[in-house]
Amino acid sequence: MPEKVNIGEKLSLFSKYWSPKIAGELNGQQVKLVKFKGEFVWHKHDHEDEMFFVLKGRFKMEFRDKTVELQENEFLIVPRGVEHRPVAEEEVAVMLFEPAGTLNTGDVRHELTQEVLQKI
Amino acid sequence: MPEKVNIGEKLSLFSKYWSPKIAGELNGQQVKLVKFKGEFVWHKHDHEDEMFFVLKGRFKMEFRDKTVELQENEFLIVPRGVEHRPVAEEEVAVMLFEPAGTLNTGDVRHELTQEVLQKI
Repeated sequence: MPEKVNIGEKLSLFSKYWSPKIAGELNGQQVKLVKFKGEFVWHKHDHEDEMFFVLKGRFKMEFRDKTVELQENEFLIVPRGVEHRPVAEEEVAVMLFEPAGTLNTGDVRHELTQEVLQKI
Repeated sequence: MPEKVNIGEKLSLFSKYWSPKIAGELNGQQVKLVKFKGEFVWHKHDHEDEMFFVLKGRFKMEFRDKTVELQENEFLIVPRGVEHRPVAEEEVAVMLFEPAGTLNTGDVRHELTQEVLQKI
Protein backbone atom coordinates (compact mmCIF):
# COMPACT_ATOMS: atom_id res chain seq x y z
CA MET A 1 0.00 0.00 0.00
CA PRO A 2 1.11 3.56 -0.64
CA GLU A 3 3.50 5.13 1.84
CA LYS A 4 4.26 8.84 1.84
CA VAL A 5 7.75 10.23 1.37
CA ASN A 6 9.03 13.15 3.39
CA ILE A 7 11.53 15.06 1.29
CA GLY A 8 13.39 16.62 4.22
CA GLU A 9 13.92 13.24 5.84
CA LYS A 10 15.20 11.73 2.62
CA LEU A 11 17.57 14.65 2.01
CA SER A 12 19.05 14.18 5.48
CA LEU A 13 20.14 10.65 4.53
CA PHE A 14 22.90 11.63 2.12
CA SER A 15 25.43 14.36 1.50
CA LYS A 16 27.38 13.31 -1.58
CA TYR A 17 27.01 15.71 -4.49
CA TRP A 18 25.97 14.70 -8.01
CA SER A 19 24.75 11.31 -6.82
CA PRO A 20 20.98 11.03 -7.42
CA LYS A 21 18.94 8.77 -5.14
CA ILE A 22 15.67 7.15 -6.18
CA ALA A 23 12.81 8.33 -3.98
CA GLY A 24 9.89 7.04 -6.02
CA GLU A 25 8.85 5.34 -9.23
CA LEU A 26 5.69 5.56 -11.31
CA ASN A 27 4.67 4.90 -14.89
CA GLY A 28 8.22 3.96 -15.85
CA GLN A 29 9.51 7.27 -14.50
CA GLN A 30 11.63 7.91 -11.45
CA VAL A 31 11.58 10.62 -8.83
CA LYS A 32 15.14 11.30 -7.77
CA LEU A 33 16.66 13.51 -5.11
CA VAL A 34 20.09 14.98 -5.67
CA LYS A 35 22.38 17.59 -4.15
CA PHE A 36 24.57 19.71 -6.39
CA LYS A 37 27.58 21.85 -5.63
CA GLY A 38 30.11 23.07 -8.15
CA GLU A 39 30.10 22.47 -11.89
CA PHE A 40 28.77 19.33 -13.51
CA VAL A 41 29.81 18.00 -16.91
CA TRP A 42 28.28 19.12 -20.21
CA HIS A 43 26.00 16.41 -21.55
CA LYS A 44 22.68 15.64 -23.19
CA HIS A 45 20.16 12.84 -23.07
CA ASP A 46 19.25 11.57 -26.52
CA HIS A 47 15.96 9.97 -25.49
CA GLU A 48 14.88 11.51 -22.21
CA ASP A 49 13.44 14.85 -21.15
CA GLU A 50 14.51 15.83 -17.65
CA MET A 51 12.76 17.92 -15.02
CA PHE A 52 14.71 19.80 -12.36
CA PHE A 53 12.69 21.10 -9.42
CA VAL A 54 14.56 23.18 -6.83
CA LEU A 55 13.71 22.10 -3.29
CA LYS A 56 16.27 24.15 -1.40
CA GLY A 57 18.86 26.63 -2.59
CA ARG A 58 19.52 27.78 -6.13
CA PHE A 59 21.57 26.86 -9.17
CA LYS A 60 22.15 27.79 -12.78
CA MET A 61 21.43 25.59 -15.74
CA GLU A 62 23.83 26.44 -18.51
CA PHE A 63 22.90 25.83 -22.11
CA ARG A 64 25.18 26.49 -25.07
CA ASP A 65 23.35 29.72 -25.85
CA LYS A 66 21.90 30.86 -22.53
CA THR A 67 21.80 30.32 -18.78
CA VAL A 68 18.67 29.85 -16.67
CA GLU A 69 18.87 30.75 -12.98
CA LEU A 70 16.64 28.61 -10.82
CA GLN A 71 15.64 29.13 -7.23
CA GLU A 72 13.47 27.37 -4.68
CA ASN A 73 10.01 26.50 -5.92
CA GLU A 74 10.98 26.77 -9.57
CA PHE A 75 11.38 24.02 -12.12
CA LEU A 76 12.87 23.58 -15.55
CA ILE A 77 12.27 20.89 -18.15
CA VAL A 78 15.29 20.17 -20.32
CA PRO A 79 14.17 18.51 -23.56
CA ARG A 80 15.98 15.47 -24.92
CA GLY A 81 18.89 16.29 -27.17
CA VAL A 82 19.68 19.66 -25.59
CA GLU A 83 23.15 20.02 -24.11
CA HIS A 84 23.15 21.34 -20.57
CA ARG A 85 25.31 21.71 -17.50
CA PRO A 86 24.12 22.45 -13.96
CA VAL A 87 26.33 24.77 -11.93
CA ALA A 88 25.74 25.52 -8.24
CA GLU A 89 27.77 28.07 -6.33
CA GLU A 90 26.28 26.83 -3.06
CA GLU A 91 24.71 23.52 -2.20
CA VAL A 92 21.30 23.00 -3.73
CA ALA A 93 18.78 20.19 -3.31
CA VAL A 94 16.86 19.21 -6.43
CA MET A 95 14.10 16.79 -7.31
CA LEU A 96 14.42 15.14 -10.70
CA PHE A 97 11.65 13.51 -12.74
CA GLU A 98 12.82 11.43 -15.62
CA PRO A 99 12.44 8.00 -17.20
CA ALA A 100 13.74 5.09 -15.13
CA GLY A 101 17.32 4.34 -16.06
CA THR A 102 18.24 7.84 -17.22
CA LEU A 103 22.00 8.21 -16.75
CA ASN A 104 23.05 11.36 -14.91
CA THR A 105 25.76 12.23 -17.42
CA GLY A 106 23.65 11.28 -20.46
CA ASP A 107 25.80 10.66 -23.53
CA VAL A 108 29.07 11.27 -21.65
CA ARG A 109 31.08 8.88 -19.48
CA HIS A 110 32.79 10.80 -16.71
CA GLU A 111 34.07 10.26 -13.20
CA LEU A 112 30.74 11.65 -11.99
CA THR A 113 28.73 9.07 -13.95
CA GLN A 114 26.52 7.05 -11.59
CA GLU A 115 25.71 3.72 -13.18
CA VAL A 116 23.74 2.35 -10.25
CA LEU A 117 21.48 4.52 -8.10
CA GLN A 118 20.58 3.84 -4.52
CA LYS A 119 16.93 3.82 -3.44
CA ILE A 120 16.22 5.83 -0.33
CA MET B 1 14.37 26.64 -25.62
CA PRO B 2 13.69 25.73 -22.01
CA GLU B 3 11.94 28.28 -19.82
CA LYS B 4 11.70 27.90 -16.09
CA VAL B 5 8.39 27.72 -14.25
CA ASN B 6 7.83 29.51 -10.95
CA ILE B 7 5.32 27.53 -8.92
CA GLY B 8 4.17 30.46 -6.79
CA GLU B 9 3.43 32.56 -9.87
CA LYS B 10 1.47 29.75 -11.48
CA LEU B 11 -0.54 29.10 -8.32
CA SER B 12 -1.52 32.77 -8.18
CA LEU B 13 -3.21 32.43 -11.58
CA PHE B 14 -6.15 30.32 -10.46
CA SER B 15 -8.34 29.69 -7.46
CA LYS B 16 -10.87 27.06 -8.54
CA TYR B 17 -10.62 23.85 -6.54
CA TRP B 18 -10.28 20.39 -8.07
CA SER B 19 -9.36 21.82 -11.45
CA PRO B 20 -5.80 20.77 -12.36
CA LYS B 21 -3.75 23.02 -14.66
CA ILE B 22 -0.93 21.77 -16.86
CA ALA B 23 2.37 23.39 -15.90
CA GLY B 24 4.75 21.16 -17.84
CA GLU B 25 5.05 18.09 -20.02
CA LEU B 26 7.86 15.57 -20.50
CA ASN B 27 8.22 11.98 -21.65
CA GLY B 28 4.48 11.65 -22.15
CA GLN B 29 3.86 12.72 -18.56
CA GLN B 30 2.34 15.94 -17.29
CA VAL B 31 3.15 18.16 -14.36
CA LYS B 32 -0.09 19.60 -13.04
CA LEU B 33 -0.88 22.13 -10.35
CA VAL B 34 -4.11 21.86 -8.44
CA LYS B 35 -5.79 23.33 -5.38
CA PHE B 36 -7.99 21.15 -3.20
CA LYS B 37 -10.53 22.03 -0.55
CA GLY B 38 -13.21 19.72 0.76
CA GLU B 39 -13.87 16.14 -0.23
CA PHE B 40 -13.23 14.75 -3.69
CA VAL B 41 -14.92 11.72 -5.22
CA TRP B 42 -13.79 8.14 -4.68
CA HIS B 43 -12.12 6.87 -7.85
CA LYS B 44 -9.23 4.92 -9.28
CA HIS B 45 -7.10 5.05 -12.40
CA ASP B 46 -6.94 1.71 -14.16
CA HIS B 47 -3.78 2.47 -16.12
CA GLU B 48 -1.99 5.35 -14.41
CA ASP B 49 0.04 5.75 -11.24
CA GLU B 50 -0.36 9.23 -9.75
CA MET B 51 2.04 11.28 -7.69
CA PHE B 52 0.77 13.94 -5.24
CA PHE B 53 3.37 16.39 -3.95
CA VAL B 54 2.21 18.92 -1.36
CA LEU B 55 3.44 22.43 -2.17
CA LYS B 56 1.49 24.36 0.45
CA GLY B 57 -0.88 23.21 3.15
CA ARG B 58 -1.91 19.69 3.98
CA PHE B 59 -4.51 17.10 3.08
CA LYS B 60 -5.49 13.51 3.68
CA MET B 61 -5.53 10.78 1.10
CA GLU B 62 -8.19 8.28 2.00
CA PHE B 63 -7.90 4.68 0.87
CA ARG B 64 -10.50 2.01 1.54
CA ASP B 65 -8.39 0.57 4.36
CA LYS B 66 -6.32 3.50 5.62
CA THR B 67 -5.72 7.24 5.47
CA VAL B 68 -2.40 8.95 4.74
CA GLU B 69 -1.91 12.49 6.06
CA LEU B 70 0.31 14.59 3.85
CA GLN B 71 1.90 17.91 4.61
CA GLU B 72 4.16 20.35 2.81
CA ASN B 73 7.25 18.78 1.31
CA GLU B 74 5.79 15.29 1.32
CA PHE B 75 4.64 13.19 -1.60
CA LEU B 76 2.60 10.08 -2.17
CA ILE B 77 2.44 7.79 -5.18
CA VAL B 78 -0.95 6.15 -5.66
CA PRO B 79 -0.56 3.02 -7.79
CA ARG B 80 -2.96 2.32 -10.65
CA GLY B 81 -6.04 0.39 -9.64
CA VAL B 82 -6.11 1.63 -6.05
CA GLU B 83 -9.23 3.51 -5.00
CA HIS B 84 -8.53 6.81 -3.33
CA ARG B 85 -10.14 10.07 -2.31
CA PRO B 86 -8.31 13.29 -1.39
CA VAL B 87 -9.86 15.29 1.45
CA ALA B 88 -8.62 18.73 2.47
CA GLU B 89 -9.98 20.55 5.51
CA GLU B 90 -8.20 23.72 4.43
CA GLU B 91 -6.97 24.81 1.01
CA VAL B 92 -3.94 22.90 -0.17
CA ALA B 93 -1.78 23.34 -3.27
CA VAL B 94 -0.51 20.14 -4.86
CA MET B 95 1.73 19.21 -7.76
CA LEU B 96 0.65 16.15 -9.69
CA PHE B 97 2.87 14.05 -11.87
CA GLU B 98 1.06 11.56 -14.07
CA PRO B 99 0.70 10.39 -17.67
CA ALA B 100 -0.65 12.97 -20.12
CA GLY B 101 -4.39 12.63 -20.42
CA THR B 102 -5.00 11.17 -16.95
CA LEU B 103 -8.57 12.11 -15.99
CA ASN B 104 -8.90 13.66 -12.52
CA THR B 105 -11.82 11.44 -11.54
CA GLY B 106 -10.36 8.29 -13.12
CA ASP B 107 -13.01 5.65 -13.73
CA VAL B 108 -15.83 7.84 -12.44
CA ARG B 109 -17.80 10.55 -14.25
CA HIS B 110 -18.79 13.25 -11.79
CA GLU B 111 -19.60 16.96 -11.76
CA LEU B 112 -15.95 17.51 -10.77
CA THR B 113 -14.62 15.64 -13.82
CA GLN B 114 -12.38 17.93 -15.87
CA GLU B 115 -12.26 16.69 -19.44
CA VAL B 116 -10.09 19.48 -20.77
CA LEU B 117 -7.26 21.00 -18.75
CA GLN B 118 -5.91 24.50 -19.17
CA LYS B 119 -2.19 25.06 -19.63
CA ILE B 120 -0.76 27.76 -17.44
